[in-house]
Amino acid sequence: MDAKLDTPPLGDIPAEDFRRFGHQIVDRIADYLDEIESLPVLSQVEPNWLKGELPESAPESGEDFADVLADVDKLIFPAVTNWNHPNFHGLFSTSGSSIGVFADMFATAFDMKAMLWRTSPVSTELEDVSLDWLRQMMGLPEAFEGIIYDTASVSTMHAIAAARERAGLDVRNLGMSGRNDLPLMTVYTSEHVHSSIDKSCITLGLGTRSLRKIAVNERFEMIPEALAEAIEKDIEAGHVPICVIPTVGTTSTSSVDPVDAIADICEKHGIWLHVDAAYAGSAAIVPEMRHYFQGWERADSIVTNPHKWLFTPFDLSVLYCRDLGDLKKAFSLVPEYLKTSEEPTVKNGMDYGIQLGRRFRALKLWFVIRYFGREGLIDRIRGHCRLAQLFASWVEESPNFELLAPVPFALVCFRACPAGVDDLDAFNERIMNEINASGDAYISHTKLNGKFTLRLSVGGVRVEERHLKKVWDLLNSKVKTL
Amino acid sequence: MDAKLDTPPLGDIPAEDFRRFGHQIVDRIADYLDEIESLPVLSQVEPNWLKGELPESAPESGEDFADVLADVDKLIFPAVTNWNHPNFHGLFSTSGSSIGVFADMFATAFDMKAMLWRTSPVSTELEDVSLDWLRQMMGLPEAFEGIIYDTASVSTMHAIAAARERAGLDVRNLGMSGRNDLPLMTVYTSEHVHSSIDKSCITLGLGTRSLRKIAVNERFEMIPEALAEAIEKDIEAGHVPICVIPTVGTTSTSSVDPVDAIADICEKHGIWLHVDAAYAGSAAIVPEMRHYFQGWERADSIVTNPHKWLFTPFDLSVLYCRDLGDLKKAFSLVPEYLKTSEEPTVKNGMDYGIQLGRRFRALKLWFVIRYFGREGLIDRIRGHCRLAQLFASWVEESPNFELLAPVPFALVCFRACPAGVDDLDAFNERIMNEINASGDAYISHTKLNGKFTLRLSVGGVRVEERHLKKVWDLLNSKVKTL
Repeated sequence: MDAKLDTPPLGDIPAEDFRRFGHQIVDRIADYLDEIESLPVLSQVEPNWLKGELPESAPESGEDFADVLADVDKLIFPAVTNWNHPNFHGLFSTSGSSIGVFADMFATAFDMKAMLWRTSPVSTELEDVSLDWLRQMMGLPEAFEGIIYDTASVSTMHAIAAARERAGLDVRNLGMSGRNDLPLMTVYTSEHVHSSIDKSCITLGLGTRSLRKIAVNERFEMIPEALAEAIEKDIEAGHVPICVIPTVGTTSTSSVDPVDAIADICEKHGIWLHVDAAYAGSAAIVPEMRHYFQGWERADSIVTNPHKWLFTPFDLSVLYCRDLGDLKKAFSLVPEYLKTSEEPTVKNGMDYGIQLGRRFRALKLWFVIRYFGREGLIDRIRGHCRLAQLFASWVEESPNFELLAPVPFALVCFRACPAGVDDLDAFNERIMNEINASGDAYISHTKLNGKFTLRLSVGGVRVEERHLKKVWDLLNSKVKTL
Repeated sequence: MDAKLDTPPLGDIPAEDFRRFGHQIVDRIADYLDEIESLPVLSQVEPNWLKGELPESAPESGEDFADVLADVDKLIFPAVTNWNHPNFHGLFSTSGSSIGVFADMFATAFDMKAMLWRTSPVSTELEDVSLDWLRQMMGLPEAFEGIIYDTASVSTMHAIAAARERAGLDVRNLGMSGRNDLPLMTVYTSEHVHSSIDKSCITLGLGTRSLRKIAVNERFEMIPEALAEAIEKDIEAGHVPICVIPTVGTTSTSSVDPVDAIADICEKHGIWLHVDAAYAGSAAIVPEMRHYFQGWERADSIVTNPHKWLFTPFDLSVLYCRDLGDLKKAFSLVPEYLKTSEEPTVKNGMDYGIQLGRRFRALKLWFVIRYFGREGLIDRIRGHCRLAQLFASWVEESPNFELLAPVPFALVCFRACPAGVDDLDAFNERIMNEINASGDAYISHTKLNGKFTLRLSVGGVRVEERHLKKVWDLLNSKVKTL
């Protein structure tokens, strides 16, 4: 054999370097989190700035790690949009706690792929335990068992796939093409559905035409009568309704579809009920918010994202199923090279979805729940809702602003409406763009009844009243100067 | 408003605690990596041991982080299967380098969701740059542009979805159910295809019946003539072939389908060519291995996983497309709340798949490439291939063992075949189970021509010749004592 085999191993970096550089990185991250309020929220770099700063090709020889670290300061940090900044109020304000970062350090170092129990007993079992803790905190019945995916889009796709399978048309084996016997399968949501549901229908081969977007009332909540009517019309036409997806906490306004009334309709027709609580699900742990979730205990599946509003670093989305066997039926497939002797007695994560390898995500959820405790999590979510109510009260009391949607959770939809401005849409868009460009805060927008609507989301683990006051002052000064 | 608003913020842990605990964790991980050879490869815990050790419910109040850390030692470490152990030779031996762990510490702390350029300029642009570096190292033409997903299963699903869309049957909008005009769409792979392709067909609504598994030759390589015949037969029957998936480095044996000959067939019929190089793609950076990839430059899409054999911690899978616009056409969908002013001039990651939020994965690939350099990566992969050849030579020279497949990369398929043993399948399974149960090494199996086959994969960043010697000694001692 080649003589080179006897040369010293190439290996990884020595343990003392791991310590030295690791400590430096911890210190750098601590500084970053400590100084985060002095940084712009949206990165201030121009498109293609970073690309222009980087060499066109990979280095031939390895570089000193100190040089890599220096470039992190010079090139990486300026191009980061700071989701952990307490004035990140765009989209949904989400933030990872330090505790979650600690957990992920272990998880990345272990580098397990949790496809089989055998390849990661700790990931498999801690997933079951921490998801059961979360289930109890959210007040869901014991029947619900969870599985962790990366994102809500993927969780929901799996839920609809299970619903598609339960429809009894053997899509798993026969597929949907080249069949003359296959009725149109339909899925129901509200007009305010998240785009992930459209994308799930596209991916699953149901197509956008399968998706019925049911009208909402003036509070942006799905109208159950309209849903019942749409389902009945489809059934009369020979179609097969396979899934209804109400949302608790829609993306545009955080509105709450009436899950209980919708569950009645699903029950009547035997349709899979999937509740999208990706954003608001965490609020179910707060006793006085529980009423928003009434009826979700009747669902077949529920998605909730601890990476959104439970201080768990991205990515960690949970799909709870009344019968996880439905998912297994839709997805399990064990080739020879993945057969193990313990198979009948253990849970193998790969059986519940398209992904084979799965990161050890449960650790960060477990760290977060233990460190904050149930009370600490309730206090934080309750605090965010109160801050949002406070901001909404400022809006309501001002003659220059108006609320455009109710505020059930911690998202405020509003706009500036000072006297004398003709084009309020353009005016509000300008306000938003100027605030975002300044780096002082990040707010985003939606359209409600044709109106350009500002969205302010409160969800960061570091947010305080003074941060909302800052946004309020910025908005008011823009109204005066624009 | 509630008086509680004026109480001190709840916030995150103080910076000094981040430093203190962060350093402790770095030291703990350094110790772990340093002592990893003294640990069992497969965790030695029994099923449900961890579950039994954990409380049934979440704690009411937050716990001291020191207690959480103590439990990491007591409960987490023993239940870890050590993928970073140099004697992890099961499945595909993959391992994350320390450099990759460092990158992920930053990525997790930033907690960006890279759906829009605006929400993470650094992730969007570093993804483009590092994937272009990798493309060049692998010798792919400039036309190929990449996108990062979590796993090869998801990469491949997206490739087939793009192929499905390009077939011109408007599956995105019309879907596949409730149509009488839709021919059967078919997908082609070899018998040795990875299960992720079956799962992709299931997910996409094509069904397992759409998947044609083409026969292989005695080297486990797809027979192009058989492929051509199957395609022609399907076309005659009125079916529509949408995608052919040869594999460079199959899971069972790492065999190499003849991509160039297959590309001829795809070209003739205008069928999407997707190359599954999830495992072996990294080897394309080694000049003398490049010939295995001949013809892949003609593909429409290629998947390769830096988390498999490029020392990048899990998860990071890359899908290269000749025209990323195909993916965008299949998946892009921009709701009002995700519209941004810079949209026309920038790349928004969410446009290329089902996932909206995406982790800042590019950083770990960039760190790895810079720290090891092109040469360092080549040396390591070349070294693994040489170690596998060395092991294969021991097998070949021994009267008690036989090779069961060629060894193009760093996977050896073999079995014990000592004289006088009747049931070689049961014998080899017992050898494998005993070695795995001991914790000394982890090897896995497959079935080749009905024979129970041992698989030894060489891919860990810490593996040396002495580790292979250890497995060889274990195998020989088992043969003598069983």
